[in-house]
Amino acid sequence: MSVTPKKVGIVGASGYGGSELLRLCAGHPDLEVAVAQAGTNAGQAVATHTPSLAGAYRDLVYATTDATALDGLDVVFLALPHGQSQHLVPDLVDRVGLVVDLAADFRLRDPADYPTWYGEPHLVPELLSTFAYGLPELFRTDLVGATRIAAPGCYPTAVLLALVPLVESGVIALPADGGVPPLVVDAASGTSGAGRAAKESLHFATVDEDFVAYGLLDHRHTAEMEQGLGTTVLFTPHLAPMVRGILATCYARPADPGSLTTEDAMHLLHDRYDDEPFVVVADAPPSTKAASGSNTAHLSVRVDPRTGWVVVLSAIDNLIKGAAGQAVQCANLALGLPEGAGLPVVGVYP
Amino acid sequence: MSVTPKKVGIVGASGYGGSELLRLCAGHPDLEVAVAQAGTNAGQAVATHTPSLAGAYRDLVYATTDATALDGLDVVFLALPHGQSQHLVPDLVDRVGLVVDLAADFRLRDPADYPTWYGEPHLVPELLSTFAYGLPELFRTDLVGATRIAAPGCYPTAVLLALVPLVESGVIALPADGGVPPLVVDAASGTSGAGRAAKESLHFATVDEDFVAYGLLDHRHTAEMEQGLGTTVLFTPHLAPMVRGILATCYARPADPGSLTTEDAMHLLHDRYDDEPFVVVADAPPSTKAASGSNTAHLSVRVDPRTGWVVVLSAIDNLIKGAAGQAVQCANLALGLPEGAGLPVVGVYP
Amino acid sequence: MSVTPKKVGIVGASGYGGSELLRLCAGHPDLEVAVAQAGTNAGQAVATHTPSLAGAYRDLVYATTDATALDGLDVVFLALPHGQSQHLVPDLVDRVGLVVDLAADFRLRDPADYPTWYGEPHLVPELLSTFAYGLPELFRTDLVGATRIAAPGCYPTAVLLALVPLVESGVIALPADGGVPPLVVDAASGTSGAGRAAKESLHFATVDEDFVAYGLLDHRHTAEMEQGLGTTVLFTPHLAPMVRGILATCYARPADPGSLTTEDAMHLLHDRYDDEPFVVVADAPPSTKAASGSNTAHLSVRVDPRTGWVVVLSAIDNLIKGAAGQAVQCANLALGLPEGAGLPVVGVYP
Amino acid sequence: MSVTPKKVGIVGASGYGGSELLRLCAGHPDLEVAVAQAGTNAGQAVATHTPSLAGAYRDLVYATTDATALDGLDVVFLALPHGQSQHLVPDLVDRVGLVVDLAADFRLRDPADYPTWYGEPHLVPELLSTFAYGLPELFRTDLVGATRIAAPGCYPTAVLLALVPLVESGVIALPADGGVPPLVVDAASGTSGAGRAAKESLHFATVDEDFVAYGLLDHRHTAEMEQGLGTTVLFTPHLAPMVRGILATCYARPADPGSLTTEDAMHLLHDRYDDEPFVVVADAPPSTKAASGSNTAHLSVRVDPRTGWVVVLSAIDNLIKGAAGQAVQCANLALGLPEGAGLPVVGVYP
Repeated sequence: MSVTPKKVGIVGASGYGGSELLRLCAGHPDLEVAVAQAGTNAGQAVATHTPSLAGAYRDLVYATTDATALDGLDVVFLALPHGQSQHLVPDLVDRVGLVVDLAADFRLRDPADYPTWYGEPHLVPELLSTFAYGLPELFRTDLVGATRIAAPGCYPTAVLLALVPLVESGVIALPADGGVPPLVVDAASGTSGAGRAAKESLHFATVDEDFVAYGLLDHRHTAEMEQGLGTTVLFTPHLAPMVRGILATCYARPADPGSLTTEDAMHLLHDRYDDEPFVVVADAPPSTKAASGSNTAHLSVRVDPRTGWVVVLSAIDNLIKGAAGQAVQCANLALGLPEGAGLPVVGVYP
Repeated sequence: MSVTPKKVGIVGASGYGGSELLRLCAGHPDLEVAVAQAGTNAGQAVATHTPSLAGAYRDLVYATTDATALDGLDVVFLALPHGQSQHLVPDLVDRVGLVVDLAADFRLRDPADYPTWYGEPHLVPELLSTFAYGLPELFRTDLVGATRIAAPGCYPTAVLLALVPLVESGVIALPADGGVPPLVVDAASGTSGAGRAAKESLHFATVDEDFVAYGLLDHRHTAEMEQGLGTTVLFTPHLAPMVRGILATCYARPADPGSLTTEDAMHLLHDRYDDEPFVVVADAPPSTKAASGSNTAHLSVRVDPRTGWVVVLSAIDNLIKGAAGQAVQCANLALGLPEGAGLPVVGVYP
Repeated sequence: MSVTPKKVGIVGASGYGGSELLRLCAGHPDLEVAVAQAGTNAGQAVATHTPSLAGAYRDLVYATTDATALDGLDVVFLALPHGQSQHLVPDLVDRVGLVVDLAADFRLRDPADYPTWYGEPHLVPELLSTFAYGLPELFRTDLVGATRIAAPGCYPTAVLLALVPLVESGVIALPADGGVPPLVVDAASGTSGAGRAAKESLHFATVDEDFVAYGLLDHRHTAEMEQGLGTTVLFTPHLAPMVRGILATCYARPADPGSLTTEDAMHLLHDRYDDEPFVVVADAPPSTKAASGSNTAHLSVRVDPRTGWVVVLSAIDNLIKGAAGQAVQCANLALGLPEGAGLPVVGVYP
Repeated sequence: MSVTPKKVGIVGASGYGGSELLRLCAGHPDLEVAVAQAGTNAGQAVATHTPSLAGAYRDLVYATTDATALDGLDVVFLALPHGQSQHLVPDLVDRVGLVVDLAADFRLRDPADYPTWYGEPHLVPELLSTFAYGLPELFRTDLVGATRIAAPGCYPTAVLLALVPLVESGVIALPADGGVPPLVVDAASGTSGAGRAAKESLHFATVDEDFVAYGLLDHRHTAEMEQGLGTTVLFTPHLAPMVRGILATCYARPADPGSLTTEDAMHLLHDRYDDEPFVVVADAPPSTKAASGSNTAHLSVRVDPRTGWVVVLSAIDNLIKGAAGQAVQCANLALGLPEGAGLPVVGVYP
């Protein structure tokens, strides 16, 4: 622990994202949790509610959610279901040094996207442009010294890390006329992405030994992918019988079908990421298990001369690189701490 | 059990496909296992090697693999790794009433496909055309009274049931000039499809909590899909942390983008399959778990007006509809038994 | 299907026990589901609610729970949470030929056990003695022609099959003075035993990769074990990260420590069960997976000369031999059908 | 990283224990891996063989196993299958500052135990007494400044932490005459305890959805438990369908049955462990998942007034507190580092 650790508040501390923030802060040399607020679990001991945290939080009790109790903190993480941050943020931003929102409330730049994809107009659209989009590998300069950060969604994190280097380098076909490009994202996630609340659809006996698509054609994260890529995407998420992990298998057509090779495409990824501490580019197809427990994204790519498709694969731990870990990485950048402080680069394997 | 059950031989009886054949035969009113041959497990008691079978096979011992011991049987199922049936079949076909091969040895019509996709020329290419392709819902008339049947692969079963109705009805875009169509098949399978032999890649600690692509660009089942569809496909299989089940998520472009709707496409599937005992077409996305333990395929389809993609989803139990169950269904047709005899239409849930 | 199948009603048809009854009836040659009643799911199509059943029940809709709608049925299965059958049974028993209750409501003979173990006095204690205890291997003669049957609990089924032969033969030490014998039952179950209702404790992300004890010292099934064994038991159930299956590992002391051997004890089990269609006694430790999907119990035993303990192991599928399958087995006996009709002896493996 | 980190060698670095040591060292402020030796994997890149480690070990290659290459290292961890350390240790101990053996080779004090439990006499029995037993919570003073440490087995770690406080305080009945006490340990483990080598018994399709006992009556860890407890134990391990985690459910009889209460027994555990950084004592039954990913043991206890049994429950992560984490904890003590350096107290949940 450094001499004067930064004081941290976590709102939504009893959910999966909040628990992961508590875990990462427990191992972070420069962050110290001062307040952990919850909703219905307020008043419970953290160690009783989530015994995995007991070793570090022997006496901490979830407080009730209350912006005034966060006054003066160095950083507040909001780990709430979509739609709640909009209510809290206007009152919060002036009370604390840095707000990092893990929900979708401040990720989309265009206010019109909220009614389209989230079913309701945004409450404070004028604040959208004040938030930096928290994907350090792609937008690091926006994050250094930032005071308001929207941490990306889990699927968009995996997909943007995979596709942006290819889109930006122009090797993927995007129609000149703004038409719909043949861009398909097929992804699988573990159940932790769906949150901690009990539902029959997330029952062990429902999910175990099952693989199923959901959110067909209209999953909300589509909007965030399209914003990041600057073009249209068909996105099909699946629920896999595992707790953590996202694998995105992305299909695109090369701009110049005859010439792009797997070696070229791998080169692009290596060029972009080989100096990044939290990205591994490798020849073998990435597995979610290699990423699990770490803040590291694993990427690979293939170009098929036979069918002309480019296949980009990306694996992350949805709760770390796809949520709490990335939020801490952003906070490190914003607060002037070492970017990797408190963040595991190595996965828990097996 | 009927008065004179048909006598069955199973070659490769100690693998997963063979065990499933033993299980299905135990509950089949008109089939009786006379011989169960194995390789390295010959001499072992079935009940000791695979205790799940003990209730029905208290005394059966795996015999050594030997075509002469199969003389005069009504039906012989070959449940061997690819490449072995080619050696056995020439000697076997005249000894028994019906041969059903569960491997890929007699699935492909064009002998040239074997060196391309399986790495070696076929040993008896002149026999390829004598085998019927055992997918009853699409080729039933070829199977009634047949004496040689190649049961389809697990992935092709799922994919052909999903896509053939749309391809045949002309609603999916196939380039007039024989060019590569934008047809992508993204699928996930449980590990049982990879067989019973021990490998580190199939270790529980490797697979559990993991989701990973494999066979990128060149999985062997691609050839079988392309044969069945009459066009080129990019196929990406994934290994999901489950034992049984395949979900195929198939992406195609409509021939006439502005007009095809989800309702139209659902209609096509209903028209094709509503009288089939082993196909369920439903609005909800199919789940592998609904199919698990049954010989039933579950299908659904979506057409996305926003991006112009058609998404067809298909779930089966890879060891039943994708292997042993379909082989029995074919044998029922070939032997003049009720098509559904001994085959579960209902999945084991949860 | 026989010429005149028996008409079946299922109450609680949308839970796991009810779904399993629907599944088994679909494959039963002599039973036909006439009515499937549910609680909050009444009005829903079975095929939509539980798609695994769609292949057999394409049009069936859950009816509302109503005894009068069951009038004249040959058999009614009650698959309800504990406490509800007591309300229904008095009105039901005269309307139908046979009632098989899958809950605990009519399992215990001594009315005083209900307030002790289930927290409330029994509503109709005078009916308790009119129910036969539905464990065919131990009480078959009570079941032939019976009209009221209480199917045993899942844990007691596994435990009584394991221990009763040893207790009855006198090889296990029971104190002459009625004191507490050193009888410990340590068992693990899959989650399906806890029912279909959503709870955070049964969430996939809670259960997966977890093993935990529950119901310490006071699990309700203790009473049923003690009734069946005629002595006191310490029972510790655990929740294992799997859907189906119970393994009971039972510890007892031999009555005559120096003389009992593993061979002796195995002999006792073989003598008792070798003619039973739904019990397999084997040298290898039984695994839940061998039993899964079948109505078969797998048993083994060891006697340790070093420490003087007897260890009896018993594996069943909790939803089949521990619930719906055993209920059907009982109904077969009561209705004069072949005892094994419609019941799988072979497990679904792998 | 401190100014002069200690130089670490890992032998057996490509197995699960070795990988976990590499992972923990990557996050340890005072340890730096200088050499990672392997057997058949020598020559492979760590990042290719175990991609989870790629983020921290981008260029490290497994070296061949060779004691001379370890000369002068501060600490060498031996993570080998049982029996191999005996061959290496005599040559190694004078070359390096500290040897921590993770196998059973130096855990047992009495050389006679090796032929009895491990099937072969020990090669260097004279060295057995020179190794400290590496369970810090029970034998910390032996470890401070030690140069040779035998890290305990996974099951004994869980069991000794649970039972030693009760045995030492005299509340558990041990026969005055040295007879066999009624001490039963029933435990379940994930598969990672069985190592990384491929076996059909560890195949995903074998283990998934299965629960089974193994090593009945004669599991090798029994000897280590009996050494630690000073008395005889019946130990029954089970394999649970999970990767990490051990839950031990231990059954004992109170020395004074009428007086010991749950509160008394909880008190004993709290007294013993409340100041320990890596032990959590709680009222709720411990779950393996709460411990997973951490070096923390979770304990609870019940005393049953009805049957007179004491039930002590103990959960650990078998690869961390049961292997690599405990080895690092011991090394920290031996090297004069903070005992908890580099070790997670919080589990990875969910």
